Amino acid sequence: MESKSVDQAQLLYEGKGKKVFQGKQTDEVILYFKDELTAFNALKKGQFEKKGEINCKISTVIFKMLKRQNIKTHWLETFADNQMRVQKTQIIPLEVVIRNFAAGSFAQKFKIQDGTAMKYPLVEYYYKNDELKDPFVSEGQIIYFGWCNESELEQIKIEALKINEALVKMFAQKNLQLIDFKIEFGKNKSGEIILSDEISPDCMRLWDNKTKERLDKDRFRLDLGDVGQGYTRILNDLNSLNIT
Amino acid sequence: MESKSVDQAQLLYEGKGKKVFQGKQTDEVILYFKDELTAFNALKKGQFEKKGEINCKISTVIFKMLKRQNIKTHWLETFADNQMRVQKTQIIPLEVVIRNFAAGSFAQKFKIQDGTAMKYPLVEYYYKNDELKDPFVSEGQIIYFGWCNESELEQIKIEALKINEALVKMFAQKNLQLIDFKIEFGKNKSGEIILSDEISPDCMRLWDNKTKERLDKDRFRLDLGDVGQGYTRILNDLNSLNIT
Repeated sequence: MESKSVDQAQLLYEGKGKKVFQGKQTDEVILYFKDELTAFNALKKGQFEKKGEINCKISTVIFKMLKRQNIKTHWLETFADNQMRVQKTQIIPLEVVIRNFAAGSFAQKFKIQDGTAMKYPLVEYYYKNDELKDPFVSEGQIIYFGWCNESELEQIKIEALKINEALVKMFAQKNLQLIDFKIEFGKNKSGEIILSDEISPDCMRLWDNKTKERLDKDRFRLDLGDVGQGYTRILNDLNSLNIT
Repeated sequence: MESKSVDQAQLLYEGKGKKVFQGKQTDEVILYFKDELTAFNALKKGQFEKKGEINCKISTVIFKMLKRQNIKTHWLETFADNQMRVQKTQIIPLEVVIRNFAAGSFAQKFKIQDGTAMKYPLVEYYYKNDELKDPFVSEGQIIYFGWCNESELEQIKIEALKINEALVKMFAQKNLQLIDFKIEFGKNKSGEIILSDEISPDCMRLWDNKTKERLDKDRFRLDLGDVGQGYTRILNDLNSLNIT
């Protein structure tokens, strides 16, 4: 499928970083990665050329790597520079955050120095709701509101930690430190809970192990320099791992 | 012990609503209820005559009622209008909030109409830390930071729900609706986790069932009228139950 046919496909949803089109099969969708970049609940906006392409390619390498580790994801095929075909899932409305080092809102909330190593990877949940500004929620609130049930939440936590372990190892090969990242899960037509959405520098903090240079969206959030340069380095590093 | 001897006793801690003195026994402390009232992390300050006395008396009735229901608390004896003798406990640094109706920060966070009945009583936790402004925390964060362990947290939740049930029933007898309340737990010298601190209109929302008049600290927070009048009505209502 080329861009042309995507233009004709039914747009199901447009998010901040992606458009979602109906796929040829009813249980598939096409993710179209946009060049736009937003931060602080979309109060700050930007974009750079090929951002969509780079994120699509990084996500692809990561989905392939996870597949090799027997971790189920929605990814089926990447068929264009900035488009992939994935299983249609019913998204569980949680942003699942895994922290290996304190940073961002967590470091601020508990007055912990940015970059402090966590005793163990901490899994946190934020309710995906733009109007409410994606608030931090407790496990008790998740169950109360029925965003998923208790055993699903346990399963999500276990999967999140497995994904974290695989990612930390992969990035360590290129001397990159995975500070934290955000993922989302969805239920496919068989009722399986699988990793959905994307995994890209838009939703992670990734630092150079030695220089502590930030290669991720914090470059954009905090105006730390050429955003594309950071993203491109990540892609080149991952490409050099030759994950097929 | 009279006020005079309290003045000579060792002040262990002074909080916003109480002073804590060392008791005659090493494993006991004296709670002295102050007339001061604060809200919004002490940004708003006030006081009214006999507030300490009323809160001490309300807490006493509640501790007696809970004792009759075999719920363990730190309370030993109320020996003056505004002073009680309690077991010394090592406080678990959590504000445990039980919600029967949506109100306050919860209603705001999730844009739910104030006073909406909860599907079931929801237990939430806030980290007791003035510098960090008592932030809302998840069960995962509580375990991560070691404020208590997993089985202790489960025990706290079960106790909190039992206490809630007993309080809801008691107030219902006087046509009062317990909207939500905050409690604290501590570990006594035997290592038991027991209800500590106070239970008073300073740390609950209590509405008249029919008129929805607020009788609690919201009168002070939101300038809804004579604060003492609300507190006094609660005390009189509880006194009329003749709990011994």
